[in-house]
Amino acid sequence: MSQTIVTSSVIAPDAADSVDSVMEAPATTSSTDLRRVRSNPDYWYPVAWSRELKRGKTIGTRYAGQPIALVRPMDGKVFALEDRCAHRQVPLSLGKVSGEAVQCCYHGWAYGRSGRCIDVPYLGKGKLPNGVRTYPCREQDGLIFIFPGDPAKADSVPFPKLGSVADPAYKTRRFGEKVNCHYSFMHENLMDMNHQFMHSKQMGQMKPRFLGGRDEPLLVEARYSFARTGGKQPWGETFIFGERRDASEKYAHKDVMTIRTEYPYQTLRIATGDEPPVMDLWIVYVPQDADEKTCRVFGLLSIRRPKLRAVLDLAWPFLVAFTERIFREDRDIVELEQAAWQELGGDHNQEVFPVINMLRRLLVRGGIPMDQGKPT
Amino acid sequence: MSQTIVTSSVIAPDAADSVDSVMEAPATTSSTDLRRVRSNPDYWYPVAWSRELKRGKTIGTRYAGQPIALVRPMDGKVFALEDRCAHRQVPLSLGKVSGEAVQCCYHGWAYGRSGRCIDVPYLGKGKLPNGVRTYPCREQDGLIFIFPGDPAKADSVPFPKLGSVADPAYKTRRFGEKVNCHYSFMHENLMDMNHQFMHSKQMGQMKPRFLGGRDEPLLVEARYSFARTGGKQPWGETFIFGERRDASEKYAHKDVMTIRTEYPYQTLRIATGDEPPVMDLWIVYVPQDADEKTCRVFGLLSIRRPKLRAVLDLAWPFLVAFTERIFREDRDIVELEQAAWQELGGDHNQEVFPVINMLRRLLVRGGIPMDQGKPT
Amino acid sequence: MSQTIVTSSVIAPDAADSVDSVMEAPATTSSTDLRRVRSNPDYWYPVAWSRELKRGKTIGTRYAGQPIALVRPMDGKVFALEDRCAHRQVPLSLGKVSGEAVQCCYHGWAYGRSGRCIDVPYLGKGKLPNGVRTYPCREQDGLIFIFPGDPAKADSVPFPKLGSVADPAYKTRRFGEKVNCHYSFMHENLMDMNHQFMHSKQMGQMKPRFLGGRDEPLLVEARYSFARTGGKQPWGETFIFGERRDASEKYAHKDVMTIRTEYPYQTLRIATGDEPPVMDLWIVYVPQDADEKTCRVFGLLSIRRPKLRAVLDLAWPFLVAFTERIFREDRDIVELEQAAWQELGGDHNQEVFPVINMLRRLLVRGGIPMDQGKPT
Repeated sequence: MSQTIVTSSVIAPDAADSVDSVMEAPATTSSTDLRRVRSNPDYWYPVAWSRELKRGKTIGTRYAGQPIALVRPMDGKVFALEDRCAHRQVPLSLGKVSGEAVQCCYHGWAYGRSGRCIDVPYLGKGKLPNGVRTYPCREQDGLIFIFPGDPAKADSVPFPKLGSVADPAYKTRRFGEKVNCHYSFMHENLMDMNHQFMHSKQMGQMKPRFLGGRDEPLLVEARYSFARTGGKQPWGETFIFGERRDASEKYAHKDVMTIRTEYPYQTLRIATGDEPPVMDLWIVYVPQDADEKTCRVFGLLSIRRPKLRAVLDLAWPFLVAFTERIFREDRDIVELEQAAWQELGGDHNQEVFPVINMLRRLLVRGGIPMDQGKPT
Repeated sequence: MSQTIVTSSVIAPDAADSVDSVMEAPATTSSTDLRRVRSNPDYWYPVAWSRELKRGKTIGTRYAGQPIALVRPMDGKVFALEDRCAHRQVPLSLGKVSGEAVQCCYHGWAYGRSGRCIDVPYLGKGKLPNGVRTYPCREQDGLIFIFPGDPAKADSVPFPKLGSVADPAYKTRRFGEKVNCHYSFMHENLMDMNHQFMHSKQMGQMKPRFLGGRDEPLLVEARYSFARTGGKQPWGETFIFGERRDASEKYAHKDVMTIRTEYPYQTLRIATGDEPPVMDLWIVYVPQDADEKTCRVFGLLSIRRPKLRAVLDLAWPFLVAFTERIFREDRDIVELEQAAWQELGGDHNQEVFPVINMLRRLLVRGGIPMDQGKPT
Repeated sequence: MSQTIVTSSVIAPDAADSVDSVMEAPATTSSTDLRRVRSNPDYWYPVAWSRELKRGKTIGTRYAGQPIALVRPMDGKVFALEDRCAHRQVPLSLGKVSGEAVQCCYHGWAYGRSGRCIDVPYLGKGKLPNGVRTYPCREQDGLIFIFPGDPAKADSVPFPKLGSVADPAYKTRRFGEKVNCHYSFMHENLMDMNHQFMHSKQMGQMKPRFLGGRDEPLLVEARYSFARTGGKQPWGETFIFGERRDASEKYAHKDVMTIRTEYPYQTLRIATGDEPPVMDLWIVYVPQDADEKTCRVFGLLSIRRPKLRAVLDLAWPFLVAFTERIFREDRDIVELEQAAWQELGGDHNQEVFPVINMLRRLLVRGGIPMDQGKPT
């Protein structure tokens, strides 16, 4: 099933209510458990924030169990090496950056940008040992990306557009942390806005209405509007959209939330009519361990600046706290999903929302079955 | 061997001293390791104290790896569901109780007392997904019980008599906590009063004397008397029995301690002659994880009130502290037994006390071999 | 390969610089992973410091997963028993020493120096259960040793000479703690003085020069001199050697550091010319768990007293702090080596220094392959 090519299609808004949706076969069959699908390494993945890596320093990071040393020489671009000295496999990221090279902290073996070992202090220069693996590396808008897959593909695979982070009309919050779950739980969490129910303490009661979506080979999209059915409009929301004088459905439906997984990234935009989005989120979930049961979130949450620009800066700390609370609820629930998966030894989801089943199939299509040889 | 039906027999008091006892074959043969015997689910097991579950709330608990949501509606009796939403397997016990139903915290799926899914907020009512498993549930004397086995048997399996908890002539301490060991270690610990040796700091030196017992298919009993051989009578004991003017064996033997495992429960009673017991303990060890290497203790320790009833209330905090110290020593030692079992990869006990070997055979007979399919 | 007998040979000082050294086959082949080689139990290993075990007490310790109870009666020598009661396998080291016996804390079973069970308080004396294993045990210079292998060999296997600990011309620091790595990493760490690079913050920049060594069936030795190439001479070093007026190579080379692994022990001596060593270290790494992925260090660091003997006592706390910092750096790096080994599922070392490859072969020859039956 994971091999079926789904042609581009528009999903009718009433799909969620149809009886058929309940009857639908689950996205993961006995032969493919979505939580065992590895992320596809042939994409650009962020592995660190630029601010984490000072000039003349090196830090260690991870992609799906592969340790990666990021090195920022005093001059020149960041580069990425396998974070294990060829000698005794201790982390190069504990080493010392000198010039364009990093020197292992233990016996001083030195490696250049190419990964070649260029010096062993106690050996003649004639014959040096093998070096370490390198990763194509790019820095963009405060994020350091690597290409963990086949390096030959790095140039041809499109670099992602990072939402509105580069647009001066927006102010961007960079956020993220480690979450103990398979990345697929994160995609599903965000795409299924019926989970708004969980945030009702933070957001008041909002009834999501599915407006339709798209289902393409490597893209699934869902559009929603929201009607407030109870509770006070929270301050954060008031700030972004302005105050709603009435909570009539008609009014509410003018704001449309569009969530899209375009493998392996995800975006969420809120816009009124054809205006530019008031909120533009770009987010990705980067597997950390080899079994991909943990991921690190890198999110860029861009809020369109109001006319009086300073107002947004003043409000920022409150917006940060508001989004933190939301994120904490999401993190807790996906970690519980992962724990249930672990305990049951497999996926027992009974998904009834067609968009989520489309998303699940997309994540299976886009990823790599867990039993295929790991590139470690 | 576990299939042998042992007919009711009275054990002679000198059995413990006989040479034969040492020669006896161990209770667990190579084919049955007592620590791998699962508890039999076709009994009523307590899974929570009543006071833990407020009206209009739900809490999560466990039996042998099965997560259980207990729900107490604002009106009506407690009920018990599998603690995993049918949708995405997150705990229902994190949900919201409304009316006679509990609503999952994530996407709001609702389940009634029958376990049926009665609402998915974003689906038409025509066709609802499958629900979750339920457990027969009863509340008695401050304990909430479930019947984790075959529900068809729940009505015919006798509900246990909970010691003297309901008798106003007694004051009862409810106690218990998680212990990291197989429940069988707890049964053996209590039944073998020769472990009094371990409590000599708390209790002074007491020589237990085995008076005899009973060995029936699902019941083993041991009776002891105690002679104080050194140390001061502890305050707690003085309180319960009155002061002993002399420590002569003759006097001491008038108090008889009777310990009984009547599968799967255990009781310990201390009585003088034909008088009602001065102490009456009812206790059970409920497996927590699927491998049953941890259990939660639920104990009801009833002390007969003296004529001047208030005296017992005044003394209560001291009695609580005294029993806590005893229990801590017991918990530490059974956890060390479990750790040794783990390290050795199996049971290496060399048991010489016939009553304990009878108890071991009873626990094998009463339980379920670990390799039989788990009902999770 | 582990069976090859290497005849005694002197290693030329220029071996480390030769091109051949890089070409050399790794010491561990696919059939022998050095980190899976068990330590050979047919040697005397320290398992505790004398000061840890008071008269009339017992303590628990370990050798390669075997729990050992050390017992020091009020009178007489220390003895060593398997630290599991024959009855229910709980630690005898939690028991009570009375006379020449130790009594299990649980039901009071008593064991003598021979390991035989000499009393079960509630059994007739006629027939007693089997006892527990014993270990040959010796106490020397503040260390308690056992012989964990074949007891018949204990008398014929030479007891190690413990450096200069017994020489009144030296003051000795006893140090050590648990390190989470296979003992082989510790041997390699100390033997390869090129890791001086790692301690440059503590010691200043020192260039080690390999002067030659020895390679015998159960002995590998390396000799070094050091030239200070930068940084200030640290206070600790000044104290031991006196102040160096110039940092010329010529001067420096007069001090020679000799590191030797004489299976399973290791020594490090620093001496000038033919004078007695100014520093004499004896050290051993005793495996703790059954997989030997952790070890406990027992080190005796002896410093030759200067003429004004009190000066060394005054300086002692500073020397202790200095060596602690060095040891902490070493411990951190070997634990990272172990972690990398674990993650890679095997040894990927690319060793280029001939002495270390000799040492690796020695440790394979001296030890026991992991798949040979464990004596637990």
